[in-house]
Amino acid sequence: MPVYARYEFEDSVHYGLVNEGKISELCGGLFDPPVPTGREAALGDVKLLAPCEPPKMLAVGLNYRSHLGSRPAPNVPGIFYKPVSSIQSPGGPIVIPEGATDVHYEGELVVVIGKTVSKATREEAAASVFGVTCGNDVSDRNWQRGDGKDLQWWRAKGSDTFSPFGPFIVTGVNYADLALETRLNDEVVQSQRTSDLIFDVPEVVRFISQWVTLVPGDIIFSGTPGETRRMKAGDVVEVVIEGIGTLSNPVQ
Amino acid sequence: MPVYARYEFEDSVHYGLVNEGKISELCGGLFDPPVPTGREAALGDVKLLAPCEPPKMLAVGLNYRSHLGSRPAPNVPGIFYKPVSSIQSPGGPIVIPEGATDVHYEGELVVVIGKTVSKATREEAAASVFGVTCGNDVSDRNWQRGDGKDLQWWRAKGSDTFSPFGPFIVTGVNYADLALETRLNDEVVQSQRTSDLIFDVPEVVRFISQWVTLVPGDIIFSGTPGETRRMKAGDVVEVVIEGIGTLSNPVQ
Repeated sequence: MPVYARYEFEDSVHYGLVNEGKISELCGGLFDPPVPTGREAALGDVKLLAPCEPPKMLAVGLNYRSHLGSRPAPNVPGIFYKPVSSIQSPGGPIVIPEGATDVHYEGELVVVIGKTVSKATREEAAASVFGVTCGNDVSDRNWQRGDGKDLQWWRAKGSDTFSPFGPFIVTGVNYADLALETRLNDEVVQSQRTSDLIFDVPEVVRFISQWVTLVPGDIIFSGTPGETRRMKAGDVVEVVIEGIGTLSNPVQ
Repeated sequence: MPVYARYEFEDSVHYGLVNEGKISELCGGLFDPPVPTGREAALGDVKLLAPCEPPKMLAVGLNYRSHLGSRPAPNVPGIFYKPVSSIQSPGGPIVIPEGATDVHYEGELVVVIGKTVSKATREEAAASVFGVTCGNDVSDRNWQRGDGKDLQWWRAKGSDTFSPFGPFIVTGVNYADLALETRLNDEVVQSQRTSDLIFDVPEVVRFISQWVTLVPGDIIFSGTPGETRRMKAGDVVEVVIEGIGTLSNPVQ
């Protein structure tokens, strides 16, 4: 079950394998055969980065019953895009942008694609998943659906720093049944198992791939459970998934 | 006024400068100083590709009064994302996907960003524009706003092959006042000057950059004029912009 990280150490950026508090540097990229260079660093000595470099990022809206409120359950996955410019590393600040008035956390399981898939069957979709990580689909509710609603969710979900993910990509884990928790200043504010997803991971990947080709490194935010709350400067938000780790970001 | 192309020739891909029916191969990328390798090819002997490799693609909805119909003019640019997987080269087919019932052309001026910009002034925004090209923001109206409307426009505007652009990136042209025409099987079906944009190019770039950082190679589809029509397999659609050229794609 290799666990991957991407990190900066001594002024250069590497992929590495994480094991017992250490990172072993890898020769190549995330999708190359994992050949260690032999160099190691303590996890505490490196700066963790977002654990892959996605060519594109997608997300699913309304994918847990506990998040629907008065809205009807969708018939098909509600897909949208997040721009790669909104990626933030573990530990990096979520910056509340000019004009945003209602910025919420959304703790989510994030899927990392490992193989090109187009018009996949459910089995091909499942086989294209490289691993999973934690993500925060930061969202301004006013631009998303308030009085200041935009034509599409471009800044509601895509402003700079609105897509933290990490800290690690875990492979070989049963992502269909993991405990997901979000903590705001140490208070548990979201708590659900990924087994409660309305559309599970293979179905989301299969569905997207009928129209949009997915390629290695693409990531999909799978949806957020329960209720969410406004964040303010000075808060710390953490997304914790069983078997993966904790994605922690301060709000600024 | 250099004119850039990206093309495949003798099994490798290059950027080049276009002049009088010939392409001079360049040593580096689009944003490197233009140093010719000395090799030339006739334009007719190469396979033209989409003229840059965008890290991300954005688009503006409802940006010509002639396209509004009964919809009110927007107060701010209506921005959305198109995924890079939807890029199609000049001459490549626009494939009508499974389940799409109302796929329309949208001829547009496309802006290519040349400098990283964040929170730009209007002047900085204008200075970040590297050049312009032609684009077709292919759109399924049913998934966009019909009975089959999706939560967001992910497949309406983002299905594979829905983002042809090219053939050339033209620099130093007065993009604020160019004639834009779309032809469906040789019939002129859209015709407008870019001076009729509700939000002009510097304003669109300035506005986006307040929330979303733009980087070299990012492209922005600036909006489509007039009315659009359903396309069917066997059609040929052309977007023709004065001083740039003709983007031609068959429908399949």
